Amino acid sequence: MQELQTYLKQNKEKQLNELKQLLAIPSISAQSEHKKDIQTAANWLAVHLKKIGMEHVKIVKTKGYPVVYADWLKAKDKPTVLVYGHYDVQSPDPLEQWKSPPFIAEVRKGNLYGRGTADDKGQFFAHLKSIEALLQTQGSLPVNVKIMLEGEEELGSVHLAEFVDKNKKLLEADVCLISDSHMASPTQPLMEYGLRGIVYTQVELSTMPRDAHSGSYGGNIPNPAIELALLVSKLKDEKSQRVLIPGFYDGVRRLALRERFELRKSSITRKTILDETGVKKTVGEMGFFEAERAGARPTLDVNGLWSGYTGEGQKTIIPARACAKISMRLVPHQDSADIAKKFTRYVKAIAPKYADVDVRILSASEPILMQKDNKYFKVAEKVLKEVFGNSPRYELQGGSIPVTAILKDKLGIDSVLMGFGLPDDGLHSPNEKLNLDMFYKGIECSARFLTSF
Amino acid sequence: MQELQTYLKQNKEKQLNELKQLLAIPSISAQSEHKKDIQTAANWLAVHLKKIGMEHVKIVKTKGYPVVYADWLKAKDKPTVLVYGHYDVQSPDPLEQWKSPPFIAEVRKGNLYGRGTADDKGQFFAHLKSIEALLQTQGSLPVNVKIMLEGEEELGSVHLAEFVDKNKKLLEADVCLISDSHMASPTQPLMEYGLRGIVYTQVELSTMPRDAHSGSYGGNIPNPAIELALLVSKLKDEKSQRVLIPGFYDGVRRLALRERFELRKSSITRKTILDETGVKKTVGEMGFFEAERAGARPTLDVNGLWSGYTGEGQKTIIPARACAKISMRLVPHQDSADIAKKFTRYVKAIAPKYADVDVRILSASEPILMQKDNKYFKVAEKVLKEVFGNSPRYELQGGSIPVTAILKDKLGIDSVLMGFGLPDDGLHSPNEKLNLDMFYKGIECSARFLTSF
Repeated sequence: MQELQTYLKQNKEKQLNELKQLLAIPSISAQSEHKKDIQTAANWLAVHLKKIGMEHVKIVKTKGYPVVYADWLKAKDKPTVLVYGHYDVQSPDPLEQWKSPPFIAEVRKGNLYGRGTADDKGQFFAHLKSIEALLQTQGSLPVNVKIMLEGEEELGSVHLAEFVDKNKKLLEADVCLISDSHMASPTQPLMEYGLRGIVYTQVELSTMPRDAHSGSYGGNIPNPAIELALLVSKLKDEKSQRVLIPGFYDGVRRLALRERFELRKSSITRKTILDETGVKKTVGEMGFFEAERAGARPTLDVNGLWSGYTGEGQKTIIPARACAKISMRLVPHQDSADIAKKFTRYVKAIAPKYADVDVRILSASEPILMQKDNKYFKVAEKVLKEVFGNSPRYELQGGSIPVTAILKDKLGIDSVLMGFGLPDDGLHSPNEKLNLDMFYKGIECSARFLTSF
Repeated sequence: MQELQTYLKQNKEKQLNELKQLLAIPSISAQSEHKKDIQTAANWLAVHLKKIGMEHVKIVKTKGYPVVYADWLKAKDKPTVLVYGHYDVQSPDPLEQWKSPPFIAEVRKGNLYGRGTADDKGQFFAHLKSIEALLQTQGSLPVNVKIMLEGEEELGSVHLAEFVDKNKKLLEADVCLISDSHMASPTQPLMEYGLRGIVYTQVELSTMPRDAHSGSYGGNIPNPAIELALLVSKLKDEKSQRVLIPGFYDGVRRLALRERFELRKSSITRKTILDETGVKKTVGEMGFFEAERAGARPTLDVNGLWSGYTGEGQKTIIPARACAKISMRLVPHQDSADIAKKFTRYVKAIAPKYADVDVRILSASEPILMQKDNKYFKVAEKVLKEVFGNSPRYELQGGSIPVTAILKDKLGIDSVLMGFGLPDDGLHSPNEKLNLDMFYKGIECSARFLTSF
């Protein structure tokens, strides 16, 4: 371990520079103009995996963006750890709010700023660096390792279930190790045992083939922007904040009293939410507290909205159409296909008959709930305590990492969610960052985890 | 008159080519990147006015875009006609829906397609061409003529009231002649005796400084896109389509039974609206028919809406802010300043306390109602019947031409609205056009009107 520690200490600069190179590739999966960048990122990773000593490196095509795979399987009678990460990133919009260019990562006050630093390039890269260090200092790995790096997580991992299904033998493992979440603070690790699923949709409402003059026709024809606003206003009850889609809450797991009590100790509180986001008030489903709402309750949000003239000044038109991106976060035991169907049916039912309504499901993934007494969780607990000084707190997470439910379903394995981000990392926002101290500690945690069997 | 007719016939090609040149200047007043184009259009017009024989040509600065002025005042003891037009145009968005480039005017099947053809370059240009013809064939004009061409009509004529107020002496006239409206059909002229006013606003609702991750915070923080939808849903009653702003209808003139009866003969009917716009159903204020709603009732529309991620694919954020462009069309005797105040107060009152709401008034203009027995209207009636074969029908128009109310207020004169557009010209829309036959007949009407005193 001494030799490993020394190696890690001596290579900090090199690790950071390599990460910066990976971050320089704008692998934005949501925008087709970046298709080539996604491929470049996959190539870069394949080359890098070979360089650090991984074997059987390959870029596997899917119906969407490819999966980068590699393994090292020479640890006889040892468990197999599947390391997952995603090399695609969110769009950097709104660009003008970045203090430094999103794809030229920059260190300021101990933080590395750039798109993908925390979500997820910087985090999964920690595992690559621990594997490199172990192979360099010991010539072998203490466990069998498989690596699966995905390029469509930010799209909702649309083709991953099919990929895993087709490659069950290749991916067979005892546990999956994922760093794509965060800690409560720099000294308080979290262990997430549940994640929400998601159904992400796009709704378009149109009433005529082209925009019309608002003077000539105002007062006589339907306005799609207003109709869409009415439609959105009927998705949630304003007072109770409950989703009004019939059957939406069917099957939602009720927490046991004991679990609610434990969640009271969660790092997700009114105060942390106000601090992290800057909102003046938390707003959520009546009858539940913040940590419950984040992890144990489903919800609905509008992620984008557009209609008519959105430029400078005025344009006196009645728009021909209005669009919204609307997503729902799901909890056990909701089913994404069922929710997608109910959403579509409800939206079509409440839209006016004189409007054409198109509902597209952009992605769907299942919620997951894992058993806390899992033996791999215990190992992670020990490692996190060694490195950060505190035992991790168990939490239900509000975000979605589709792979967790897919692996549970297809391979029957749980995922250890060992995140090294911090709550203020600004995932999906301008000025996303990763704390460098957390990055280096992440590498150490990874090395300790892999040597604990 | 014979000589004039011959001149007009011989110069058709030249008139069209000159108009195409004017149309080639993208004088979009709403977009500051086109500031220079506005100035170019003003310069082009000043040069052209001199060329056709107008005197005292000048480009008068305002706090916004300049007014182009010219006159010819040698007709002793004759009335003075003030010709008004606007040389600014609407944005051509959405560009991809144009069949030919918006600023390279193209003739197809007897129509001239391009931004500004009908609104308003093509229409006011008809008066310039009639004046040119009169001066060329007779060496003088039969009346005194003043020309005022504005560059901010599409912005709501924001600085015109101040300009007229400062230049009362310069602009003094007996009547104003405006071609910025349309006929019911190629053979049925309209005389508009009332126009709506407008208050155009921009509302921004924000809840936090930057977008937040919809997984981590969904269910716990307010969503500005949903809050804005709720706000918009409270502006009009969904069933009755009545505007819910307290005091909105105060002072709205009730039509006399006789006037309602006359409006029943209007060209604005359910059928024409369905034909012209392509909507499946007319939707408007309960208790009123289409022609009333268009000209005699105020209304409210959303002209633009935007929030969060509006690009391709998905981005899992809760937006930090949401914006809407919301405008209200006013009728006599509503007051734009009063409505702007009531709107702002209501919006702030219904917005949630945890949101910051900013309401900006982008423009405001007054509604106008003129007396139909005006002697200049009688002259226009005669001329329109001579050229088109039918007496004009009197109508209340839904659009707004701010100058009409400004001239009534500041100079005490009425405006003859002698429009040569057609209902399907697509003002403010892609593929705006002007029928060439209407353009040439417009020139003839203008010449006949000026020689009728």
